[in-house]
Amino acid sequence: MNTTRGDRPPTSVDVARAAGVSQATVSYVLTDNPHARVSEETRRRVRDAAARLGYVPDAAARTLRTGRSGIVLMPLSRARVGRLAQQVFDELEEEFRTRGYTLVQYGERTLKGVAAARSWLALRPSAVLVEAARLTRPAVDLLHASGVRAVIGLSDQPSPLVPAVVFDHRALGAAAARHLVERGSRRLAAVVPREEGLDAMGRARLAGVREVVPGAARIDLAFSEEEAGRIVRAGDLPDGVFAYNDEYAMLLISALKDAGLRVPEDVAVVGADDLPICTLMRPRLTSVHFDATASPADLAGEIDGIVRGERPSVGGEVVARFEPRLVIRASA
Amino acid sequence: MNTTRGDRPPTSVDVARAAGVSQATVSYVLTDNPHARVSEETRRRVRDAAARLGYVPDAAARTLRTGRSGIVLMPLSRARVGRLAQQVFDELEEEFRTRGYTLVQYGERTLKGVAAARSWLALRPSAVLVEAARLTRPAVDLLHASGVRAVIGLSDQPSPLVPAVVFDHRALGAAAARHLVERGSRRLAAVVPREEGLDAMGRARLAGVREVVPGAARIDLAFSEEEAGRIVRAGDLPDGVFAYNDEYAMLLISALKDAGLRVPEDVAVVGADDLPICTLMRPRLTSVHFDATASPADLAGEIDGIVRGERPSVGGEVVARFEPRLVIRASA
Repeated sequence: MNTTRGDRPPTSVDVARAAGVSQATVSYVLTDNPHARVSEETRRRVRDAAARLGYVPDAAARTLRTGRSGIVLMPLSRARVGRLAQQVFDELEEEFRTRGYTLVQYGERTLKGVAAARSWLALRPSAVLVEAARLTRPAVDLLHASGVRAVIGLSDQPSPLVPAVVFDHRALGAAAARHLVERGSRRLAAVVPREEGLDAMGRARLAGVREVVPGAARIDLAFSEEEAGRIVRAGDLPDGVFAYNDEYAMLLISALKDAGLRVPEDVAVVGADDLPICTLMRPRLTSVHFDATASPADLAGEIDGIVRGERPSVGGEVVARFEPRLVIRASA
Repeated sequence: MNTTRGDRPPTSVDVARAAGVSQATVSYVLTDNPHARVSEETRRRVRDAAARLGYVPDAAARTLRTGRSGIVLMPLSRARVGRLAQQVFDELEEEFRTRGYTLVQYGERTLKGVAAARSWLALRPSAVLVEAARLTRPAVDLLHASGVRAVIGLSDQPSPLVPAVVFDHRALGAAAARHLVERGSRRLAAVVPREEGLDAMGRARLAGVREVVPGAARIDLAFSEEEAGRIVRAGDLPDGVFAYNDEYAMLLISALKDAGLRVPEDVAVVGADDLPICTLMRPRLTSVHFDATASPADLAGEIDGIVRGERPSVGGEVVARFEPRLVIRASA
């Protein structure tokens, strides 16, 4: 009795029959719905039946049936922020999974507005977390009209269109500048990467530096030894530099040392991200990094609340805010 | 005539009617199927109609209709290989997109076998590219029985279960060792990271080093300054070290310099991955890295061929092979 016809995959109806429960109960148990009241004994019976039959819940069928895929989509970002983003993604992945969602990363990195929204909709996500700069009012309207329950922006400030997760790049630049000034730098500069996708963050961080020192210089720099060498040899570097991030700081410090300049005596340098390489550089690198005031668990919980309609989904809201934190080492 | 009833989203039937073509033609055009013979004029008409109606192709509906989601799933990897993997992923993403597939990255990193296969199946992928070590015979059978057309392993050697993309870690270690021997190192050691998820690659690279120098020592090392310092101070380091990758090389070189040792005079060091930091270290880091003998386009094409049933999907096959390449700088 516990087998199905061999020529089709088992369905949740088969599982319900084998476990002696309703199809809804099977669905509750196999999606790990934490809000369903199902006894542990029944859960075990359903899981055993599913395993015995080789039943696989089917996201496509579930989506059509419920209109809810449970997919949280993070479109790939133009800023290839690497390790930091990967770590945040990993932590979020786990938090969403325990809530019955599937965090998915995909798509190309450059589409904006309605064209981007259309491509994201191919997966029928329940929620989309994406750089706010890629959203437009028509795109947000299309996403909502197509069943996306939560559209969340990632941005350096609250978004007028959607609730946002705020990475305060301006405050990050300001924190670096304040430290440089406090330890004695008299003239400041901030590196703005020439690389597309990093330039916007670079400008926001520069704006923060200029909140503290309005006359701070802007150094446009591609990630190349030649260019860093040229800038250092030009000889008009100020005595305090916020280098955009740790890798640019390493680039700049190499060029400074090659030119016979001392860090921090001649030029003090602050990086950002607090990567492991900070402790491996000589001098060890002082760095600012984002510190989650909201934990990944809180963030996933907030987004789950929006998907369930228990929290408002309006522009101007801040879902979570990442504030800068300074780690002082030897380079500044 | 070009509108649909307001209370339901437009379907491909609506688009076909508005464009005066068959539903199959709509499907060909909107999935960018390069093999369909549809005139440019017709393609334009279909795209215009779709845009006018606000039609969004729906992956869930398409999957149920055709049994093919067009999703290529790359489950997240236990080895957080960072920038290198991200670059490969980016290039593959584009190649798959031009072939009408959606490359998706998701899942937790540790499940193996049937449990992993079940979680991947939630998205009904057409293809799965995953570390071969996470596959078992029952998992592969379940994936195939559930409609996955191509199961591809990522591995350091051909897999008996599935066609594989081979990253030859053993050859990478051997290439590093040969260079160290040729430039004069008499005793060798290889770093094997203690970090879970990196240890397997570390052991494969060590095995390659020992193909060249059977007596090469093994240095187990966690990514920590304290531990690197302890190992260097213990004082029995050989005069040539393959440091597993560029970041471990940076860790080791910092510890060597702190102990007053010179690189490469006292200890020659070779890294791996050829990251941008190689040129920023002093001395600049000699590094081995994987060089695609198969381009991402070829790789996507091979996998597409397997999905279409035009190429065999059997164990022992090599879909693409990444061979090591040495970049000689100053550290060895």
